[in-house]
Amino acid sequence: MGTLTGIANGRAVNEDRALATPFLRCLIRLVRAQDTHGAWESKCDADLLAAFILTKEQRRKIPIIGDPDPDVLWRLQTFYTCVGLAIEERAGLVASPLMSISHEGFGRVLLTTGRLVVLSKTLRDVHRFGFETLGKLAEVGTKMVDDAIAVIDVYPNVARA
Amino acid sequence: MGTLTGIANGRAVNEDRALATPFLRCLIRLVRAQDTHGAWESKCDADLLAAFILTKEQRRKIPIIGDPDPDVLWRLQTFYTCVGLAIEERAGLVASPLMSISHEGFGRVLLTTGRLVVLSKTLRDVHRFGFETLGKLAEVGTKMVDDAIAVIDVYPNVARA
Repeated sequence: MGTLTGIANGRAVNEDRALATPFLRCLIRLVRAQDTHGAWESKCDADLLAAFILTKEQRRKIPIIGDPDPDVLWRLQTFYTCVGLAIEERAGLVASPLMSISHEGFGRVLLTTGRLVVLSKTLRDVHRFGFETLGKLAEVGTKMVDDAIAVIDVYPNVARA
Repeated sequence: MGTLTGIANGRAVNEDRALATPFLRCLIRLVRAQDTHGAWESKCDADLLAAFILTKEQRRKIPIIGDPDPDVLWRLQTFYTCVGLAIEERAGLVASPLMSISHEGFGRVLLTTGRLVVLSKTLRDVHRFGFETLGKLAEVGTKMVDDAIAVIDVYPNVARA
């Protein structure tokens, strides 16, 4: 029992740490900003992002035939918009996302600032978009932002063109 | 009568000149490549591109409410794919188009080579996509290609990054 409580506590500490990262702060703000009717007001931050989290078992159970769920597409759009916003927070340059996804769940996303492509990613199995833990979500998002900032540092004049 | 024939002849000469431009040659190849069942085999080049041509009166008559026609979306996609191919022909760099259009007919198209944005355009009233004459179609397409090549010349290393 003591060990189980210990694991649960450890998970809670990791969750809190993830929720405190600039990337997840930004994502939480972005999600709350879309809560027009206050339906999610009573939700804590972890619950608000719960739909972004999928265990391996949950992922496997989602069929990848048929059109991706509109909620998944919304989460995908929100995630990449958040990457763009986090880039803007750090570099002071607007990074606009452009996403194109076929009804089969394949697609591509581009983030550009000025004439510079700061992120280009092929998307697959969009139906199963999600992360194993909040920590993983924060890590992947933060890495994308870091990589984009590194590209801007290499080509600062193109990013401002 | 003589003058009318003269005007008709003049138009035919202009059409032939337009059809001989590298941009329209490329567009014709692209359209013919999609003619899987040979349905358009007997069509001459001008007829093949006829759907790209809209007079001002025809444009005005097309309502801009409701979802854009799938045929219009196909023409739009074909046009920008052609811009990308024509860039590739001249610069030797693959220019991949990414397009996102809302069901209301607004959207954005990006053409990138490497890390460089060579074309970025906001699309409006997609329902009415078309050009007044073949000459105009050739002119607009060629200008987009020229502008993209000019951008590549300014940032050659970013286009190859």
